[in-house]
Amino acid sequence: MDGVKPLKVAVLGCGSVGSQVVRLLREQAGDLTARVGAPVELVGVAVRRLEVTREVEVPEHLLTTDAHALVTREDVDLVVEVIGGIEPARGLILAALESGASVVTANKALLAEDGPTLFEAAAKAGRDLYYEAAVAGAIPILRPLRESLAGDRVTRVLGIVNGTTNFILDKMDTTGAGFSESLTEAQDLGYAEADPTADVEGFDAAAKAAILASLAFHTRVTASDVHREGITEVSAADVASAADMGCVVKLLAICELREGPDGEEAVSARVHPAMIPASHPLASVREAYNAVFVESEAAGQLMFYGPGAGGAPTASAVLGDLVTIARNRLAGARGAGESAYTQRPVLPMGETRTRYHVAAAVDDKAGVLAAVAQAFAEHGVSIQTVRQEGRGDDATLVVVSHEASDAQLAATVTHLQGMDIVREVTSVMRVEGGHE
Amino acid sequence: MDGVKPLKVAVLGCGSVGSQVVRLLREQAGDLTARVGAPVELVGVAVRRLEVTREVEVPEHLLTTDAHALVTREDVDLVVEVIGGIEPARGLILAALESGASVVTANKALLAEDGPTLFEAAAKAGRDLYYEAAVAGAIPILRPLRESLAGDRVTRVLGIVNGTTNFILDKMDTTGAGFSESLTEAQDLGYAEADPTADVEGFDAAAKAAILASLAFHTRVTASDVHREGITEVSAADVASAADMGCVVKLLAICELREGPDGEEAVSARVHPAMIPASHPLASVREAYNAVFVESEAAGQLMFYGPGAGGAPTASAVLGDLVTIARNRLAGARGAGESAYTQRPVLPMGETRTRYHVAAAVDDKAGVLAAVAQAFAEHGVSIQTVRQEGRGDDATLVVVSHEASDAQLAATVTHLQGMDIVREVTSVMRVEGGHE
Repeated sequence: MDGVKPLKVAVLGCGSVGSQVVRLLREQAGDLTARVGAPVELVGVAVRRLEVTREVEVPEHLLTTDAHALVTREDVDLVVEVIGGIEPARGLILAALESGASVVTANKALLAEDGPTLFEAAAKAGRDLYYEAAVAGAIPILRPLRESLAGDRVTRVLGIVNGTTNFILDKMDTTGAGFSESLTEAQDLGYAEADPTADVEGFDAAAKAAILASLAFHTRVTASDVHREGITEVSAADVASAADMGCVVKLLAICELREGPDGEEAVSARVHPAMIPASHPLASVREAYNAVFVESEAAGQLMFYGPGAGGAPTASAVLGDLVTIARNRLAGARGAGESAYTQRPVLPMGETRTRYHVAAAVDDKAGVLAAVAQAFAEHGVSIQTVRQEGRGDDATLVVVSHEASDAQLAATVTHLQGMDIVREVTSVMRVEGGHE
Repeated sequence: MDGVKPLKVAVLGCGSVGSQVVRLLREQAGDLTARVGAPVELVGVAVRRLEVTREVEVPEHLLTTDAHALVTREDVDLVVEVIGGIEPARGLILAALESGASVVTANKALLAEDGPTLFEAAAKAGRDLYYEAAVAGAIPILRPLRESLAGDRVTRVLGIVNGTTNFILDKMDTTGAGFSESLTEAQDLGYAEADPTADVEGFDAAAKAAILASLAFHTRVTASDVHREGITEVSAADVASAADMGCVVKLLAICELREGPDGEEAVSARVHPAMIPASHPLASVREAYNAVFVESEAAGQLMFYGPGAGGAPTASAVLGDLVTIARNRLAGARGAGESAYTQRPVLPMGETRTRYHVAAAVDDKAGVLAAVAQAFAEHGVSIQTVRQEGRGDDATLVVVSHEASDAQLAATVTHLQGMDIVREVTSVMRVEGGHE
């Protein structure tokens, strides 16, 4: 590659992902040169403090605390942003694009909150903005959605996109433990942070759902469009009830193409715990692994599986984007930008059609089943199965509905809670992964 | 898109894949225009005979029997080759590239036999040649290997890339039936052809292994480099023996980066039935589904799952390539071509390191286990586990070895077969999906 101008890369952030990006850039230099067609040169790493111990040794002369000066350097071709959070990441990405650099980012929160601003800035600058690492870590899912399925019509995306919650739910499933106990174990093993809110309340998964829905349906969905429920209310009884039905409980990011109230095509984007059949490919995704299940008109059912987090896996995704952008720059081209040409409305959760699993402790007497069934019917909800478990004081009715609007289902549950013969509604959970 | 010149597409072949390509091109015209940035216009479909009933109606004026004239038409930008086989497909692809068209092909046999000729022709013409549909149907696997993992170092690819054999082995596993019976069922259900040789003898999988190994390791591997064993010798006893070990039998395409005899980096590419642990993600790939499991240095373990065949799924992969090429053409650019910069040697099977599962009916007397263990030791093969099952006339020794060269393992089996105390070697199978 003598005589070919090197592509100069700046990295923002040198935490667990950034340090692995730096390591791979240095260790794989020969391969990267061959794959890109030009040397890839690391010219700077912006950090908050110069004097800290890092996972990977970074030559001192590359370190700087002036991120803005680094991204606006005239010779920088490519900026890798792995700081995370909204600011200063957004300002730095915009400054980098404006001064002519292309950008790779792993910043799901920023993309989900303000993606369009970034996409417009990239389009205006004629530069690439790639972010495979923002969803499901190392798993190639955005590129397949954006490119491999570009000639198909994606109708549904179901994702296990948060490793912490999958670890917790998997523990609950395999050990029978409750949520708190399983969370503590996840924290002890480093799978959950001391403040686990972003994970267990579904914020992290909701950001990823917004990104997936936008790409899958060529429309704009932001984090605030995504209905969000976490897993803190999932009980050992819910998990046991799922097992009785041949199901497991997973926190799912669900993006669907649905018919809106006026017959128009609309998008449903939501994150909530749900029961899925044990035979569903997503059911066997264990521990902290991630997987994204995609349904499309022609391809049918696809699944993408792998590690959803971690320094090295996330860095692998970053480097893949970096090589693509580097090739594009050498060719004087630009990858396909974001397209939001369909401008589909996002359905409110109440209008989203789902199925419910409801377990209720009831009086054990004749006519209870009929009365409960009548409550479902009054709200226009059709029942798929109903079974009574236990007798006497342990009598429980378990109902699985057909698809109905979430509002109808929620109203049915409220109705049940007010009935004399219903002592307690013990478990309410949506059921996904089947077909109606 | 008024005023933007349409991209003109010619399709070669109108069988189950070609007719779905034609259908999608017409049904998704609006979406394709938005995604490409220009209209995509179908200008001709080459068929062998004009008067046949097709799955999809094709306007008569588009049909032609003169494929060569179609691909060399000056206004054709893109040729989709879904005829299959070596000739006339190769000649038509070369003619298309030479006359300035880019090409999408699903032709695994041609790529595995003579890929380099096609890649060189594409490079010389400055045109794109994409072939996602050639391996594992609709599953995006080539693009992830080529692009998403371009900054990583792939060390192993394990693929279930033939749906027919997976269906048969899955039947054998779930019903206990033998090979012939399961093959007949596969034929009755349309999962196997009347002449099933290409599938059950592993030719189809070997072609795909060659393509996967070439892309994963940036080297040239052709079908003749791939060691190939089919599933016709897999018995109900083998499958039962696997189940006893907590394993299932799968026909795997295995591509590995291995140390060669002189310490150099070499490639192993092979197709054979193997036992894999039931906990391995590939073990749960049922019926005619395909999946490719990828191990890389930074990303760790990834899996890609979906339908490996069928008209519509394969057409989905073809259309994805078509959109990418169309965007490249509009941008005046070309996608990354094939790279074979590593030029790694391909190891002969005898030098490939594997593990063996061996079951042998033996005399039930003291010293048998020691004698069998000694036979393994004489060939330098270390034993992981050995257990005796049954007593008297039913006494069977089951041995699982550690990794050794395939030649050492084969010699050990020959040795066992010659021992007086060994009445019969009842099952020999390689064991994959673990780590040493």
